[in-house]
Amino acid sequence: MDIQVIINTIWVLVTAKLVFFMNLGFAMVESGFTRTKNTTNILSKNFIVFAIASLAYLFLGWGLMFGDGNGFIGLKGLFLLQGPDNSPLTGNDYRGVYSALSWVKVPLYAKFFFQLAFCGTAATIVSGAVAERIKYLSFIIFSFLMCMFIYPVVGHWVWGGGWLAKIGMLDFAGSTVVHSVGGWAALAGILLLGPRFGKYENGKTNIIPGHSLPLATIGTFVLWFGWFGFNPGSTMTADPVAISHIVVTTNTAAATSIISSTITSYILLGKPDLGMTLNGCLAGLVAITAPCAFVTVGASIFIGIIAGILVVLSVLFFDKIKIDDPVGALSVHLINGIFGTISVGLFAKDKIAGISTGNGLFYGGGVKLLKIQLLGVVSVGIFVFTLSLIFWYFIKKTIGIRVSLREEIEGLDIGEHGNIAYPEFYIKKTYF
Amino acid sequence: MDIQVIINTIWVLVTAKLVFFMNLGFAMVESGFTRTKNTTNILSKNFIVFAIASLAYLFLGWGLMFGDGNGFIGLKGLFLLQGPDNSPLTGNDYRGVYSALSWVKVPLYAKFFFQLAFCGTAATIVSGAVAERIKYLSFIIFSFLMCMFIYPVVGHWVWGGGWLAKIGMLDFAGSTVVHSVGGWAALAGILLLGPRFGKYENGKTNIIPGHSLPLATIGTFVLWFGWFGFNPGSTMTADPVAISHIVVTTNTAAATSIISSTITSYILLGKPDLGMTLNGCLAGLVAITAPCAFVTVGASIFIGIIAGILVVLSVLFFDKIKIDDPVGALSVHLINGIFGTISVGLFAKDKIAGISTGNGLFYGGGVKLLKIQLLGVVSVGIFVFTLSLIFWYFIKKTIGIRVSLREEIEGLDIGEHGNIAYPEFYIKKTYF
Amino acid sequence: MDIQVIINTIWVLVTAKLVFFMNLGFAMVESGFTRTKNTTNILSKNFIVFAIASLAYLFLGWGLMFGDGNGFIGLKGLFLLQGPDNSPLTGNDYRGVYSALSWVKVPLYAKFFFQLAFCGTAATIVSGAVAERIKYLSFIIFSFLMCMFIYPVVGHWVWGGGWLAKIGMLDFAGSTVVHSVGGWAALAGILLLGPRFGKYENGKTNIIPGHSLPLATIGTFVLWFGWFGFNPGSTMTADPVAISHIVVTTNTAAATSIISSTITSYILLGKPDLGMTLNGCLAGLVAITAPCAFVTVGASIFIGIIAGILVVLSVLFFDKIKIDDPVGALSVHLINGIFGTISVGLFAKDKIAGISTGNGLFYGGGVKLLKIQLLGVVSVGIFVFTLSLIFWYFIKKTIGIRVSLREEIEGLDIGEHGNIAYPEFYIKKTYF
Repeated sequence: MDIQVIINTIWVLVTAKLVFFMNLGFAMVESGFTRTKNTTNILSKNFIVFAIASLAYLFLGWGLMFGDGNGFIGLKGLFLLQGPDNSPLTGNDYRGVYSALSWVKVPLYAKFFFQLAFCGTAATIVSGAVAERIKYLSFIIFSFLMCMFIYPVVGHWVWGGGWLAKIGMLDFAGSTVVHSVGGWAALAGILLLGPRFGKYENGKTNIIPGHSLPLATIGTFVLWFGWFGFNPGSTMTADPVAISHIVVTTNTAAATSIISSTITSYILLGKPDLGMTLNGCLAGLVAITAPCAFVTVGASIFIGIIAGILVVLSVLFFDKIKIDDPVGALSVHLINGIFGTISVGLFAKDKIAGISTGNGLFYGGGVKLLKIQLLGVVSVGIFVFTLSLIFWYFIKKTIGIRVSLREEIEGLDIGEHGNIAYPEFYIKKTYF
Repeated sequence: MDIQVIINTIWVLVTAKLVFFMNLGFAMVESGFTRTKNTTNILSKNFIVFAIASLAYLFLGWGLMFGDGNGFIGLKGLFLLQGPDNSPLTGNDYRGVYSALSWVKVPLYAKFFFQLAFCGTAATIVSGAVAERIKYLSFIIFSFLMCMFIYPVVGHWVWGGGWLAKIGMLDFAGSTVVHSVGGWAALAGILLLGPRFGKYENGKTNIIPGHSLPLATIGTFVLWFGWFGFNPGSTMTADPVAISHIVVTTNTAAATSIISSTITSYILLGKPDLGMTLNGCLAGLVAITAPCAFVTVGASIFIGIIAGILVVLSVLFFDKIKIDDPVGALSVHLINGIFGTISVGLFAKDKIAGISTGNGLFYGGGVKLLKIQLLGVVSVGIFVFTLSLIFWYFIKKTIGIRVSLREEIEGLDIGEHGNIAYPEFYIKKTYF
Repeated sequence: MDIQVIINTIWVLVTAKLVFFMNLGFAMVESGFTRTKNTTNILSKNFIVFAIASLAYLFLGWGLMFGDGNGFIGLKGLFLLQGPDNSPLTGNDYRGVYSALSWVKVPLYAKFFFQLAFCGTAATIVSGAVAERIKYLSFIIFSFLMCMFIYPVVGHWVWGGGWLAKIGMLDFAGSTVVHSVGGWAALAGILLLGPRFGKYENGKTNIIPGHSLPLATIGTFVLWFGWFGFNPGSTMTADPVAISHIVVTTNTAAATSIISSTITSYILLGKPDLGMTLNGCLAGLVAITAPCAFVTVGASIFIGIIAGILVVLSVLFFDKIKIDDPVGALSVHLINGIFGTISVGLFAKDKIAGISTGNGLFYGGGVKLLKIQLLGVVSVGIFVFTLSLIFWYFIKKTIGIRVSLREEIEGLDIGEHGNIAYPEFYIKKTYF
């Protein structure tokens, strides 16, 4: 066996496992930032969602994303990875219908598992944004549709040899493909769901604090850890220079974003808010996801700083326009997914980790790449938001998407699951 | 140094670390599914058990399991890995007394650490089943005996070149060797211990809810993550096709088992119970552990579905016959360990990931393999259950195995450790 | 690309990620061992500290530590890794200013990230020792200075080709460089801060129990897991024999230390205290950190046993002399960092995992190595303790280091952050 195949496979599988582990991170961040009465529900959603993603992506999603087809969608080898494929052979030796990944020197199932872990991430982002009021079954159905259709189609455009790939859009590890897709789908859900009971009353915004900062902190550390799989793993090849570079840009953006979000929250809110520090970390990680392989470590400093400021402003902004996102998922994944994608057009430098980018605006490449990135952001946004609205609307009109007011006040744990998360602890009652 | 040795060693050590990490998973699942008054005790047991396993397996267990000997037991190089061994040399170049693993191209200590992590898993399974009433010291002594004698002997039969290996029993990563061994030892303990005070009263079964679903969820995610070391690591060789295949069958069985256990609990209990979803995940993982390298991804779908149904029915069944297993360890590890081992006889397909199996019943191999698997299940069951009963009985007659009723009602944390787990929180009192 | 470079890079990055993950471990141990009213504060400190370390080490720390210079300090390529460097070329092919690591066959950024993860660990050790009374900003400033100056200078002495390296001091993975440096800095902070309100009253020591043993247990398991990156990763080379050996000595010392600390606490305190078991694990890991590659597995058994006894005695001792260390950081990191470093002088055996040591006292090498190790311990101690005192004093005289008594009693979460960690739970009030 070719030694490079062996090494690549270890690298791809180990990093995929770290990305899988991010499911724990999301589960903890989202349950930590919400209330005890809905904890069982959130844990249930975040636990089952990777199972849902696994099946949806195995049955059809992978084929739509990486099957040979047209610029819009995969058309060959759609179901259950049953198309011909002789991976790990590559280049001229490759015979199969998943050509977009024919450059990757690993067996087919390693490619699949890595991509599945990414698909699962997109779905889990939605969970937090629609938390504390969505029906369990409705979330499951939407997640299934998202992993089977929405995510794979966008993935095909950018990573599956589709039209955005062809015009040169650069999204190394998925600020757009994963994070903004999750964000747009969440936004559509929030708009159809409406805010939680009691969140906006008489023109003022009530703060609904999350029930456990230790859980939120565990979650954010696990996500930061997982991102060291997410970004450098997206090489799908054990290229020492590239993966070392990506690890450092990724960590540096997280670090500066943590500092800038903490300072921003200090200035705007009067205290260094831990929730903002944690979301600041995630914001920096989301933002650096697209450019991690295309920018210098110096640039990653600035990308992180901006991401940390953006996330705090964005949280305040969404509350102002009464978009109720309990965990800040839109500010982290949508806003910084967009910013990260655009930042490639600004900060990209040629061959910084071996990849040609043609340079972004700040490195003398003019606005060419920036325009492509913007086109990608906008077209993905329109597609995902519209299709998500349709799916959510369809679910709303059939089985409904929101639990009853009585159930919402009592907590979804009782209504949806019949179990509470902390049966032995005395919990304070609030009217909402 | 041979490059394959380097790569294999990385693979074996990295996956062993993931298996080690499963100790955190078990500690969280088991403490989450039990009560606050026993949390310190459960954490203490699950923490110390890997230390106990480390010493028992180092001193003697490894030698009994992998030392050259007869079909029943290892007899050479018994103590402290002190037998001659020139690993990583293999095949005809190998000179040593641990021949059963002479095909593995890694240094001796890498073999040892990987196998130790598995031994520790078998011991930690027992902890949850006997929780909330066993004496701390008695559990420690049993774990020590189990890791030094019981587990290594069975391991010798199947993986150490013993009689079950010779007749062709297939247990790739240990549905029998690890999980059912843990399950049988736990069953023996439960029978001698009896149910917890208040569990079965006046002909009805009281539900004793676990105190923290977040901890249980953390634990299950960590175990799922760890299983990506457990199953593909059991190749002990960085074989790209095999490890990629195993990762996907492992994940797919977990996914379908999560769905089927959730649906089954929905139907039988009226709500999608998170505890059942979590145990469903573990059930699927246990079941796919033996067959992961021998079956197609399609077969793993069915193995998972069955595992998820089995675990729910089994939990209800054990309560009906008044076998009090606080965390569902028997349903997960014993029942699905047996099912997974049998499923090899049904679903095995020749050379699916490069290994000859002779095909199971559903792939035209007839009942030959199935009969061998059943013989393995039964003989391991008789041996482990009997020897465990003897060990438990011996401990019961000397230092006792059960705490006093007063201590049980008050909580083992005070009686055994003098510390409570959550000293600042108000905890609800219940009479049992 | 040289295949060894690829493999080494994977090894270095994967182990570095595990070391990074230890930040979660420290955050959980330290918050678990302290009170609910300070939980947000501790989580905030332990979260932001890796961001602080990332920037301080990137800007200057790395250069001071590994830049070519004199025996005391690095002088070239100080800022932002901007010195010339053609890694992964090594030996005679190396051209650059970071010669001390020119033997490591990985790209520069892989070296940097690995070393950064270690720097972050030293800083996070301080957090627990000064918990529950230090100002958030003051801790941040000290951490920044520590990661930028104190840690890198000591690192230069031992690992950067400085004077202790030249005289032959052996500290494989940092019992001194990381752990005792963290410990000395913490001790200086504690002395200037004074004990927590209510800890020592009328000649007696009040026990202030930590608020969550599950969090402390999660943390310790994560640290144990992370140490499988910390120690074997310090090879910075995928040497199969060495890394396998180190994994086993590391785990064995942890195991025996767990047992010995549990027995010691049983004897001295009357019960097997879980806190002591957890700190016993960490003590064994800290102690084996320096000698892990230089001693036999048999020696690691004894090193662990001693570490476990030492940590319990040390905790009792520090309370006796009214040094208030809420989480036992001094006993774990300082005392066992010192013991571990000295143990090299006692137990080192030549070429046990391929490295020449000249043998320690118990293996016929006389007191030569022991004296060098002691000199290292003492000189590092004097330097770090003095410089830390100066830095702490400077901070105390400018912005202050301790919160007001009122804020301390109310909890730092409100005063420093405006958020409490568990807003929905009823928490018991105590007067201190």
